[in-house]
Amino acid sequence: MSLLLRALNGEDTPRAPVWVMRQAGRHLPEYRALKERHDFWTLARTPDLTAEVTLQPVRRYAMDGAILFSDIMTPLPPMGLDLDFRPGPVLTAPVRDRAAVDALRVPSEDEVAPFVADAIRLLRAELERDHPGTALLGFGGSPLTLATYAVEGSGSKEYARFRAFLRSEPDAAHALLGKLADTSIAYLRMQVNAGAQAVQLFDSWAGLHDAATYARFGAPYAKRVLDGLADLKVPRIYLALDGAHLEREVAALPCEALSVDWRRPLGAWRAVAPAKTLQGNLDPAALLGPHDALEEEVRGVLRAGLGGAHVFNLGHGIFPQSDPAAVERLVATVRGFDRHAQAAR
Amino acid sequence: MSLLLRALNGEDTPRAPVWVMRQAGRHLPEYRALKERHDFWTLARTPDLTAEVTLQPVRRYAMDGAILFSDIMTPLPPMGLDLDFRPGPVLTAPVRDRAAVDALRVPSEDEVAPFVADAIRLLRAELERDHPGTALLGFGGSPLTLATYAVEGSGSKEYARFRAFLRSEPDAAHALLGKLADTSIAYLRMQVNAGAQAVQLFDSWAGLHDAATYARFGAPYAKRVLDGLADLKVPRIYLALDGAHLEREVAALPCEALSVDWRRPLGAWRAVAPAKTLQGNLDPAALLGPHDALEEEVRGVLRAGLGGAHVFNLGHGIFPQSDPAAVERLVATVRGFDRHAQAAR
Repeated sequence: MSLLLRALNGEDTPRAPVWVMRQAGRHLPEYRALKERHDFWTLARTPDLTAEVTLQPVRRYAMDGAILFSDIMTPLPPMGLDLDFRPGPVLTAPVRDRAAVDALRVPSEDEVAPFVADAIRLLRAELERDHPGTALLGFGGSPLTLATYAVEGSGSKEYARFRAFLRSEPDAAHALLGKLADTSIAYLRMQVNAGAQAVQLFDSWAGLHDAATYARFGAPYAKRVLDGLADLKVPRIYLALDGAHLEREVAALPCEALSVDWRRPLGAWRAVAPAKTLQGNLDPAALLGPHDALEEEVRGVLRAGLGGAHVFNLGHGIFPQSDPAAVERLVATVRGFDRHAQAAR
Repeated sequence: MSLLLRALNGEDTPRAPVWVMRQAGRHLPEYRALKERHDFWTLARTPDLTAEVTLQPVRRYAMDGAILFSDIMTPLPPMGLDLDFRPGPVLTAPVRDRAAVDALRVPSEDEVAPFVADAIRLLRAELERDHPGTALLGFGGSPLTLATYAVEGSGSKEYARFRAFLRSEPDAAHALLGKLADTSIAYLRMQVNAGAQAVQLFDSWAGLHDAATYARFGAPYAKRVLDGLADLKVPRIYLALDGAHLEREVAALPCEALSVDWRRPLGAWRAVAPAKTLQGNLDPAALLGPHDALEEEVRGVLRAGLGGAHVFNLGHGIFPQSDPAAVERLVATVRGFDRHAQAAR
């Protein structure tokens, strides 16, 4: 079993496996070259292009994990929610009432995104041939985060309209979250059945809510999705960005690993979720500073991750302006850090 | 002494005083009418217009606090950092190196913003005459938050450039933070000497940083500003937005009150800062929902604030799309809540 899967399954591995959120994308010159010829949606919906973009960081950095190149919005169009990228995702008709929720379809595993299944099959074959130590990760958005976009209609700093919707239309919100959960289960089961070896559920906007609101509209639907994958026996990673105040609710979710942001040290998360693998949590801004300081910060995260299973990653997606040489330094530092020797000190 | 000042000074008052962050501004039709004739900077720099805008919510809602209408960027131009509003503040020449920091001036109390001193004198006279129960609050940005803008140059979701600057130019960052702290002391002392009866220090971007970074670049400079006001004997309020993970550092700051956001319940803050007045923390999105649900949420915050001094407020600025009728309902609910009777239950 690959190092990444061993760590995600709870093993206190001799070195930390490493991958980087958004590793496939704009910080790579080879991605930007492809992007000049194809728009985002074409890259994400054309299996050989998707596989190529997904593999770019694996070839360059020999990452322990390859994460499918895609967008968490992918399952929305088959539900009946059309998207545009300008360049961020924008819904042509956001969900604003119960009738709009009732009109949504829940696509089957076969319908939801066949191009993703094809890309995953291509990727597994190529990885097994050329990068046998690299595990393939699938991913999706949590129901709460997908609902945030579905109601707001576009990116926002505050998502005021969505937060108001939870108050003015709580029944419609629950119906929407339920449909998004069932769609996400189909979407992620499809990914695993096509060959994804672990999955990450991104709750990028969980941190906007207080714990009571998250306990009502966030955690139950994340749990429903995670429970819906349990029989597949692949590690499930959950990320609640900016979720320090949600630690109790997050720690109770049925998943093998928590991906945590840079705000709160790994040790504090270890204390509330001792049975879970921790993934993270370098501040992505560290990649923009001097490389010696970066190495120090990477070592700090590695030391904080001792005493249990740890997957090295950033606390959030890599900034597009990051220098690939900085990522190389990061990866080399993680690979050179002997966790068992350090823990014995 | 007014109810607001009593509560800020630590008294467990019979009812919670109330004001609302950004109460003077875009959610009010009378503000929008003025804004059609004058741009933001004119309103903030013309004392009789500033006083008029500051008083609009006091007249409409009989708030217990009037907060000066201004922008936290106000002290930057006299330091040599020119600003444009398009409509958010944009620096014409952001600070990017040590030379730019060395070129900055630290204006004196008399130089920093005489138009603000004039507005405060007008306001105190008008409040004493027409609204004797309403206290006047001054405010400023914390050094960390001002530095965030000074380096980034404009609003941003991630402030990646600033976060990189802290790593690549730590000495320049400390020099910048020191100058911003001294300027902020002059700016806030001027406000108090002109008549402000309490001051709030806004650390709007504190929550972007992990506790170690905040302990290095945030807390020491917030402390320097707060210490620099101690002899004036006015209550000092500190707000660290999204600061649940900074609770220990924030609770140790020399201030009478903490203004806290909606993410974390008041009781959790009371536990770490038992000697401080708590201000907050209704989710501003509650004002966009049904008014009965709003009243329930307001009561929930009021109950959570029992057991110590509490100033009712939002957890962040009011959304511009908020209905003044919702604010009226909020204020009426706070006024109708007898804290001593509730606490005795």
